[in-house]
Amino acid sequence: MTAPSELRPRGPVSPELLRSVFRRHAAGVAVITARGEGPAGFTATSLTSVAAEPPLISFGVGTASFSWGVIARTEHVGVHILGEHQSELAARFATRGSDRFGPSTRWRGGPQGVPVLDGVLAWMVGRVVSRIPAGDHHLVIAEVVEGDSSGPGRPLVHHQGRFGGLRD
Amino acid sequence: MTAPSELRPRGPVSPELLRSVFRRHAAGVAVITARGEGPAGFTATSLTSVAAEPPLISFGVGTASFSWGVIARTEHVGVHILGEHQSELAARFATRGSDRFGPSTRWRGGPQGVPVLDGVLAWMVGRVVSRIPAGDHHLVIAEVVEGDSSGPGRPLVHHQGRFGGLRD
Repeated sequence: MTAPSELRPRGPVSPELLRSVFRRHAAGVAVITARGEGPAGFTATSLTSVAAEPPLISFGVGTASFSWGVIARTEHVGVHILGEHQSELAARFATRGSDRFGPSTRWRGGPQGVPVLDGVLAWMVGRVVSRIPAGDHHLVIAEVVEGDSSGPGRPLVHHQGRFGGLRD
Repeated sequence: MTAPSELRPRGPVSPELLRSVFRRHAAGVAVITARGEGPAGFTATSLTSVAAEPPLISFGVGTASFSWGVIARTEHVGVHILGEHQSELAARFATRGSDRFGPSTRWRGGPQGVPVLDGVLAWMVGRVVSRIPAGDHHLVIAEVVEGDSSGPGRPLVHHQGRFGGLRD
């Protein structure tokens, strides 16, 4: 049964409440890359598989971020699923001003010129098909045109602001 | 350096390749509910936080699914973050033909008439603001209008087709 007071229209909750809910959530960790004037990339915990036919994925980008300047214009993105041995890489691609493609990062030019990171569990190249404005972010949808899932290891997981791994 | 052969346009990969990549990914587990003719709901591993201002979330629904018939019409959804003690609940809401709101499921009528599950880590009620067709799925965006993050426990995680937990 629903009490009448439960049917009152409500406004949006605070950003703090949303954050407190998602601190309870766990997420796999991805690095999204693209080629702008040089290689660019950022850590994302919003990667999901959207559809099988055609093969679509999505992820979010803050519209005020440096990364959005590149993602807004690129035709292709690289999408990497990080292993639990890669928490330093995840932190590097999440830190403002860090040297993301310096000597500490092993990478190569991959299909469609997209930077592909070494040592990941799996990677894909996606052709961006949609950029959907959503509040202070954009939701990006890409069709997967290339991929490999043969890297060794188990996934890195983000929870309560920290990187960790799965229980055996 | 990128070899010219790497710049050939490519078509979409097979659904099998996409699946093999996402078997390497880990995801938190949510149950999405709505009130249709009766209570309805399904397990989703695609829940993400999209924006802070306004507070937006997203999840995917297969367009051929029974759930889509309800989600296509509802104004509000319930979104629940499951704990590692709730793998049976996750399996029930992922199994075709199961008695999802039968005696084994503890739930109540929540804000806006949305079914709210008991014993979860956190729950939200979202007002659906967008339903985006994406291949054989729809991507749903909702604005969070109510929520609670005070449930005890640690998150349930989905990986390689199984439910598990995080390492301490």
